[in-house]
Amino acid sequence: MDIALPSFVQIIEFLGTFAFAISGIRLASAKEFDWFGAYVVGVATAVGGGTLRDIMLGTTPFWMTDSIYLLCSGFALLCVILFSKHLIRLDHTFFIFDAIGLALFTVVGLQKTLDFGFPIWVAIIMGATTGAAGGVIRDVFINEIPLIFRKEIYAMACVIGGIVYSICTLFDLNTIVIHLLCGVSVFLTRILAVKYHICLPTLKNFDDK
Amino acid sequence: MDIALPSFVQIIEFLGTFAFAISGIRLASAKEFDWFGAYVVGVATAVGGGTLRDIMLGTTPFWMTDSIYLLCSGFALLCVILFSKHLIRLDHTFFIFDAIGLALFTVVGLQKTLDFGFPIWVAIIMGATTGAAGGVIRDVFINEIPLIFRKEIYAMACVIGGIVYSICTLFDLNTIVIHLLCGVSVFLTRILAVKYHICLPTLKNFDDK
Amino acid sequence: MDIALPSFVQIIEFLGTFAFAISGIRLASAKEFDWFGAYVVGVATAVGGGTLRDIMLGTTPFWMTDSIYLLCSGFALLCVILFSKHLIRLDHTFFIFDAIGLALFTVVGLQKTLDFGFPIWVAIIMGATTGAAGGVIRDVFINEIPLIFRKEIYAMACVIGGIVYSICTLFDLNTIVIHLLCGVSVFLTRILAVKYHICLPTLKNFDDK
Repeated sequence: MDIALPSFVQIIEFLGTFAFAISGIRLASAKEFDWFGAYVVGVATAVGGGTLRDIMLGTTPFWMTDSIYLLCSGFALLCVILFSKHLIRLDHTFFIFDAIGLALFTVVGLQKTLDFGFPIWVAIIMGATTGAAGGVIRDVFINEIPLIFRKEIYAMACVIGGIVYSICTLFDLNTIVIHLLCGVSVFLTRILAVKYHICLPTLKNFDDK
Repeated sequence: MDIALPSFVQIIEFLGTFAFAISGIRLASAKEFDWFGAYVVGVATAVGGGTLRDIMLGTTPFWMTDSIYLLCSGFALLCVILFSKHLIRLDHTFFIFDAIGLALFTVVGLQKTLDFGFPIWVAIIMGATTGAAGGVIRDVFINEIPLIFRKEIYAMACVIGGIVYSICTLFDLNTIVIHLLCGVSVFLTRILAVKYHICLPTLKNFDDK
Repeated sequence: MDIALPSFVQIIEFLGTFAFAISGIRLASAKEFDWFGAYVVGVATAVGGGTLRDIMLGTTPFWMTDSIYLLCSGFALLCVILFSKHLIRLDHTFFIFDAIGLALFTVVGLQKTLDFGFPIWVAIIMGATTGAAGGVIRDVFINEIPLIFRKEIYAMACVIGGIVYSICTLFDLNTIVIHLLCGVSVFLTRILAVKYHICLPTLKNFDDK
């Protein structure tokens, strides 16, 4: 008799999927992809990381059991088609959504991997894969060197979240508290890294020297 | 005591695999790949889509259970090596083979996904993946932006075939009739789109404006 | 009560993983990747082939059950960061390690595939995938056309090793002898191909003629 209201996690998941899809569709538009190509890049950005995680865990990719992720990516495409000229003003909002999505996807990836019985170091990698591999697939599709390998603290934020998670497990905390601390640490690392232009060191091209 | 004659479906499958492999090998030759590289690109174009589908469905990739697909790709390589100068005259023939292969691969992908118990919207995506993902892998290997994301109605033909399939299921038709209608709609969409230069709209690069 | 000493195979595996990771990290450094990106490319080069093999075999990727592979790649990153200027002098050593790794990975991939009940022609492909696919993933990440498709006898050495393996099985030899003959044939093919500049023929770009 109840109408199923979306839970808090579902709302965050929708916002994160939307922001990830928007980032893929916008980069596709810069390369003059058609609507179909932009949609595929948007979907790949949004669900690619979780799909790779699920294939390595040996389970059915999550988006094949719930159509919300593909619908959400379609909604993102519609928004870009209709409001393309105004979207640039929302850059800051998308950046926040993206960071929220990154935090949630990391927690989901970590927890799912632990639920499958893998050790914490595999879970940390799978958390980062869930959060960041979609962006790598996006950049391969648009034929660019993946951005996260060169310029930004992005996947590293997922790794830091994973380390926070593993430290939390030492203190016998409630799962929800661990999830919150992990997610907040991913979110803050990402936000602060962008705000203060914090980068990892670049490797020198030693073959030239 | 019977000699196994290839069935009609097997002949179509061979022609489609051959045409897909030829397309990969020809694009590889434009980048001066060696024989081995060209063969790998040809195989990836021919079986890459079905392999990705089977991995997501959680089953053994189809080409690992029957060597015909790799032999067919090897035969395609041999043809390109021996008859390279004359192949260009056969462009139209290859285009028809390719469209036939696309239609068959879509039907195979759709049906296999439904047989695994997934809903029709997953099957439509898997039909398009079976038909079109090989071409994406090919373009990633030759370091080009995937053609199907920018210029042609290709994967969209698979999606239209999938929609025809799902409409047919509403009318309680015989499976063979559904397969035929689905395949014909993919084939015709592809042929007509090329003949009349039908394209999807391109996304404007709004970040420049 | 025993202290587990690494076996001969484990030492070779460590050297091979190290050499593969170094090759990924060095190419990443030429593109000015940051430490994180270089590590990911190093890991992908070292474990990418075996991961693809395990996914196609339907089993858990090997590196998820033993952390030594990721630690070894981290050690490779550390060496590049600390000793980058001196590494170029060790080029010949890395080349030998790489060829040893290629030989071992081929044998491992072949045997694992046979152990899963697949026929020898699938095992040959999986041996080559284990040895060479990591380098393809590396080159996709750094946005270059995969080197092994154009210039070098690399994956072909794995295929030759696989053919030697399948010939050996006809003579009812001991498994260890078969593994040694297979590995040595991969190693020698690779070394001799580089030393005498043996290449496969390149496909002519017939579309220009």
